Amino acid sequence: MLWRTPEGEIRALEDRCMHRGAPLSLGRCVGKGLRCSYHGLVFDDGGQVVQIPGRDSAPPQARVRSFPAVDRHGWIWVWMGEAERASPDRIPDMMPLDTPDYHLGPSTYDFDAEARLVRENLLDYSHIPFLHADSFGISEDWATTPVGLTELDDGVEYRRWVLDQPLVPGSPLRMDVYSVFSLRVPGIIRLWNGYYPLGTAAELDHGVPPEDYPGVKNVNSSSQAVTPMTDKTTRYFFSWGPRKDCGDETIRDGLIAIAGMAFAEDKIMVEAQQREFDRAPERGLLALPSDEGINTYRKVMARFLREAGELGDA
Amino acid sequence: MLWRTPEGEIRALEDRCMHRGAPLSLGRCVGKGLRCSYHGLVFDDGGQVVQIPGRDSAPPQARVRSFPAVDRHGWIWVWMGEAERASPDRIPDMMPLDTPDYHLGPSTYDFDAEARLVRENLLDYSHIPFLHADSFGISEDWATTPVGLTELDDGVEYRRWVLDQPLVPGSPLRMDVYSVFSLRVPGIIRLWNGYYPLGTAAELDHGVPPEDYPGVKNVNSSSQAVTPMTDKTTRYFFSWGPRKDCGDETIRDGLIAIAGMAFAEDKIMVEAQQREFDRAPERGLLALPSDEGINTYRKVMARFLREAGELGDA
Amino acid sequence: MLWRTPEGEIRALEDRCMHRGAPLSLGRCVGKGLRCSYHGLVFDDGGQVVQIPGRDSAPPQARVRSFPAVDRHGWIWVWMGEAERASPDRIPDMMPLDTPDYHLGPSTYDFDAEARLVRENLLDYSHIPFLHADSFGISEDWATTPVGLTELDDGVEYRRWVLDQPLVPGSPLRMDVYSVFSLRVPGIIRLWNGYYPLGTAAELDHGVPPEDYPGVKNVNSSSQAVTPMTDKTTRYFFSWGPRKDCGDETIRDGLIAIAGMAFAEDKIMVEAQQREFDRAPERGLLALPSDEGINTYRKVMARFLREAGELGDA
Repeated sequence: MLWRTPEGEIRALEDRCMHRGAPLSLGRCVGKGLRCSYHGLVFDDGGQVVQIPGRDSAPPQARVRSFPAVDRHGWIWVWMGEAERASPDRIPDMMPLDTPDYHLGPSTYDFDAEARLVRENLLDYSHIPFLHADSFGISEDWATTPVGLTELDDGVEYRRWVLDQPLVPGSPLRMDVYSVFSLRVPGIIRLWNGYYPLGTAAELDHGVPPEDYPGVKNVNSSSQAVTPMTDKTTRYFFSWGPRKDCGDETIRDGLIAIAGMAFAEDKIMVEAQQREFDRAPERGLLALPSDEGINTYRKVMARFLREAGELGDA
Repeated sequence: MLWRTPEGEIRALEDRCMHRGAPLSLGRCVGKGLRCSYHGLVFDDGGQVVQIPGRDSAPPQARVRSFPAVDRHGWIWVWMGEAERASPDRIPDMMPLDTPDYHLGPSTYDFDAEARLVRENLLDYSHIPFLHADSFGISEDWATTPVGLTELDDGVEYRRWVLDQPLVPGSPLRMDVYSVFSLRVPGIIRLWNGYYPLGTAAELDHGVPPEDYPGVKNVNSSSQAVTPMTDKTTRYFFSWGPRKDCGDETIRDGLIAIAGMAFAEDKIMVEAQQREFDRAPERGLLALPSDEGINTYRKVMARFLREAGELGDA
Repeated sequence: MLWRTPEGEIRALEDRCMHRGAPLSLGRCVGKGLRCSYHGLVFDDGGQVVQIPGRDSAPPQARVRSFPAVDRHGWIWVWMGEAERASPDRIPDMMPLDTPDYHLGPSTYDFDAEARLVRENLLDYSHIPFLHADSFGISEDWATTPVGLTELDDGVEYRRWVLDQPLVPGSPLRMDVYSVFSLRVPGIIRLWNGYYPLGTAAELDHGVPPEDYPGVKNVNSSSQAVTPMTDKTTRYFFSWGPRKDCGDETIRDGLIAIAGMAFAEDKIMVEAQQREFDRAPERGLLALPSDEGINTYRKVMARFLREAGELGDA
């Protein structure tokens, strides 16, 4: 459970009173601390009970677990591993909603599926032309152009040119698209796309293009977080929008609406996978070359969890 | 999952892509085959992957299980056992809805209970006067007249005369009823009833009466299938109606309506059984002589499953 | 399942036919007995099958368990332990709804939680000022004044003076409150409160006050039963109201309405506990001194269950 001290600092405690299991999230703020709404115990902002009604003192073992938590990039980041291993400087550099040079809109989608399945949906670009034919409507080139995978210290990054694409589905204007996608532990995504004049990829020898290249259009960016709610439910936070010289709030709202259609398509598929895996958990799958990103990310995630002092999936 | 080739032939594949578990039933028809809507893999009509987007070939193990399937008697029959043991000539001889000399109407009922409980409800005629007092409204003679059980190669059959019954509940006209009921693996039912002039049973020495016996009335027939949807849910397909010389579409619709009332009664009882068995699965039951049909059918079903190469319940 | 004989006597049988698991509560009364609505078996009022349709006799093992049951104090009491250990004289002396000198109103609340959690909520008075700040609105003195616990043969009793309290929340008139609460196995509660002139507690040396003490006000009483429906659901029966010289039906209805608000608060908390304990059943709790009543009651309950010949929780 999360609250802010009167100074505005974020605090995170386990949502289970050690006395009778009551959720502290039903409590009330008292000073920097919190009073449980069940039997009135007062916790300080580090999780130690400092007052028990009708008693002179509280035993030291009357405490709940506290988690390191910080505000950054407009989001709250809570470290669920061993507290001494928290390192806020490892927080990825996300774009907050009020990023000055972009019009970013927010959205949230819930899945009745484990977070891993949602991440792995996002890691496999080969599904986009097929599952999202009715929403994104992009060509099969997005499935067949190699993703240009790089293993990061804390995730995977795809960088690639997809050549000779319409500016928007159905447009006669064709361009070269440069796309950067990264997914970092435990499920933090950044996406950047820019549409360049046809031939730019060849001209730049398929290198990294400047963001302000002459004639660039349709520059857009998205920040996302795949957040486990329970073992089998996931909340997916999402922002998307155009760079201000490439689109206004109407474009932004259109992108958010299209993403909503696409995520409804993902939801049908990912929840069907979850039901099938629950039905027959013992059955294996057949890896294909397009699973390279999934496999690389799994390896990074396993290493990260070992370092965090946790065994399970985050 | 089922689909038809452009030639109209029925095809059945397991509804689980071997790659990532996606349901193929969300796919799209391409030629004789099927394209999975998740990552665009194309399957031929035997379940072999023949195209992977962006790849030159597909590995031979990229395939899903295919099931023998045929159209017959207006229904689709899928063999879930070992493919080489499928024998379409063992399909029971059902009456399709467009049988020329009957007015047959269709219906479907869903049960939150395992298929076995629905079958065993149908196998025990002694429940009909009691559970269906408010719908069928037939006399207790239907519970007390022995069912005349014959064990078939693939099921059980009941043939019997029930003497001196009203033509319809409340009618002063009393007749002898000849009734034939069969339930064949895995849950295929045929029912035929004819009402004969009082004394016919004795006159025929309780033998099989001709269907066109003088004075016969209220001849009706039903074809049914108890189909497992999951371990604990069942869909029950049902047709019923009068022979055309014994009733018209209005009679047919009345029979279907009465059956709907009766199945609502069955649903309450069978689902209550399921909840009780789930609550206390370790507790036994006390067999009574009226369970003879249930016990015989179970024996036949076990033999059938051994022959089909399956261990579980169908 | 419960029914009354034509003479009005209450009977209780296990709600599971030993033949096919059908609920006998769907049956119909026949004479003193009951006919199962599935296959028509007739049970006598002790649970023995006395008629099977189409058979001359019933086997002796065709019987279901019968439970001792009596009407008393306007409620029905069923003994779930070994029948020979039933002793109706141990039924606590409750106040029926038609008690002459009180205006008592009824209510019922359902919890998606095990009965134990509802009982233990009621046993710990320290929650009342905190969880029920918006409904009962009583002072923290009710959390900090010791409850004056007595272990009974079949439960626990709290008797105490809470000094210098407002007659009702916000009232300038302050009084000494005498409160008696008992919870007896398996979950039977009586509550009696009287408000006495300030100083009465000292004058009586904190002894038991007469119910008709001069100047006594706001005398009220409640009878309650915490009844398990299933392992994880509970129905809570409740009555409350003023002594007739202390309030009328309007006061009674106001008390029932306030109790409804308070039980909605309890429901949120107790169901959250249940979800948390289901989520992490292996985790322990930290007992506090205010858990004395809970611990004493648990000890009494365990003794009672041993004596009843049962092992589980009632």
